[in-house]
Amino acid sequence: MSTSRTIPAKTGNARTKLLDAAIALVRRQGFSATSVDQLCQMAGVTKGAFFHHFANKDALGAAAADHWTDTSSSLFMEADYNRHADPLDRYLAYLDFRDEIATGEVAEFTCYAGTSLQECYGSSDAIRDAAYQSIAGHSARLAEDLDQAIAQYGAPEGVTGLSLGLYTQAALQGAFILAKGQGNAAPVHDAIAHLRRYILMLFNREGKI
Amino acid sequence: MSTSRTIPAKTGNARTKLLDAAIALVRRQGFSATSVDQLCQMAGVTKGAFFHHFANKDALGAAAADHWTDTSSSLFMEADYNRHADPLDRYLAYLDFRDEIATGEVAEFTCYAGTSLQECYGSSDAIRDAAYQSIAGHSARLAEDLDQAIAQYGAPEGVTGLSLGLYTQAALQGAFILAKGQGNAAPVHDAIAHLRRYILMLFNREGKI
Repeated sequence: MSTSRTIPAKTGNARTKLLDAAIALVRRQGFSATSVDQLCQMAGVTKGAFFHHFANKDALGAAAADHWTDTSSSLFMEADYNRHADPLDRYLAYLDFRDEIATGEVAEFTCYAGTSLQECYGSSDAIRDAAYQSIAGHSARLAEDLDQAIAQYGAPEGVTGLSLGLYTQAALQGAFILAKGQGNAAPVHDAIAHLRRYILMLFNREGKI
Repeated sequence: MSTSRTIPAKTGNARTKLLDAAIALVRRQGFSATSVDQLCQMAGVTKGAFFHHFANKDALGAAAADHWTDTSSSLFMEADYNRHADPLDRYLAYLDFRDEIATGEVAEFTCYAGTSLQECYGSSDAIRDAAYQSIAGHSARLAEDLDQAIAQYGAPEGVTGLSLGLYTQAALQGAFILAKGQGNAAPVHDAIAHLRRYILMLFNREGKI
């Protein structure tokens, strides 16, 4: 998941400020490179407040993945694409929405969950599990629409909603890495165009391919 | 790119040993979490040897991306899939090869370039550029086959070999992240199955989809 809309770090309580700071700093520079001091400074809270809320930096990293899940779930659940009655239209409009929000600085549209999972999977079970759950949960939500589309329109044997949902996230997460290399969102727009074309062909849907 | 075959850290000169150690440690724990002491210990070289070969850790990280490019280029260039006369067959056999080498521990089949690019893009221009060049160069090699396939079989307007090559790498890189969450290569195999189905449909090629 990714969104350029996060709660500004200066609002909310100390815990929320630290979670928002973690998301902003990890997207920009990674988890290990982000110090407790930097987190406290960006959040505008004391070290005492940090350790009141979190046992250590790993605990904050895992809680930040849950916070990321919550804020991005709200963003996607409230988005206009859900209004479509047809499940395939909902998926295609979801891609349009992803296309639309892939804008601005790279650190603003890339994914806290994917970035922290990539870096911390071997060093923190808590971050790995919370970050993966963020991506898997988002995929499962997409899978509901895709399973409805498969029931309604059919699909090749072995193609499931969950498999397509996870593949959608894989293509987006990988495109974020390419975007970091290019310094812009072009790879994300390209990946979405390929995903759209794949889905249209898979479901024999007429449309701009 | 990724490969489970790397030169063992105990062979070669000090520089090569350090490059191999960087690739092994960064794939397992990320770049920032990897210290110069750990690198020297794994490579079995002194700190003096480290700073004889590299100005700092960032310089090693960038050189390791070039080393990754060299070793994985050899692996792919020498692989059996290149024997196919038909360019689309070559691409499909490349996917089979990627499927085959996605095995073993997660740190053994995931990608040094993708991992270091994800983490260091904001903090080290040298690592970012070398890591992106590794992925982009591999995509460009794939694009040669794909452009030949497009010339031979046609493709929808706007589909280019390079766009498909980069999309292939995006899907693989993102699947590596999911593999880190699941602790196994299943997401890589799934992503390759979707890529294969997409390409077969795109080129109207008969085959198991």
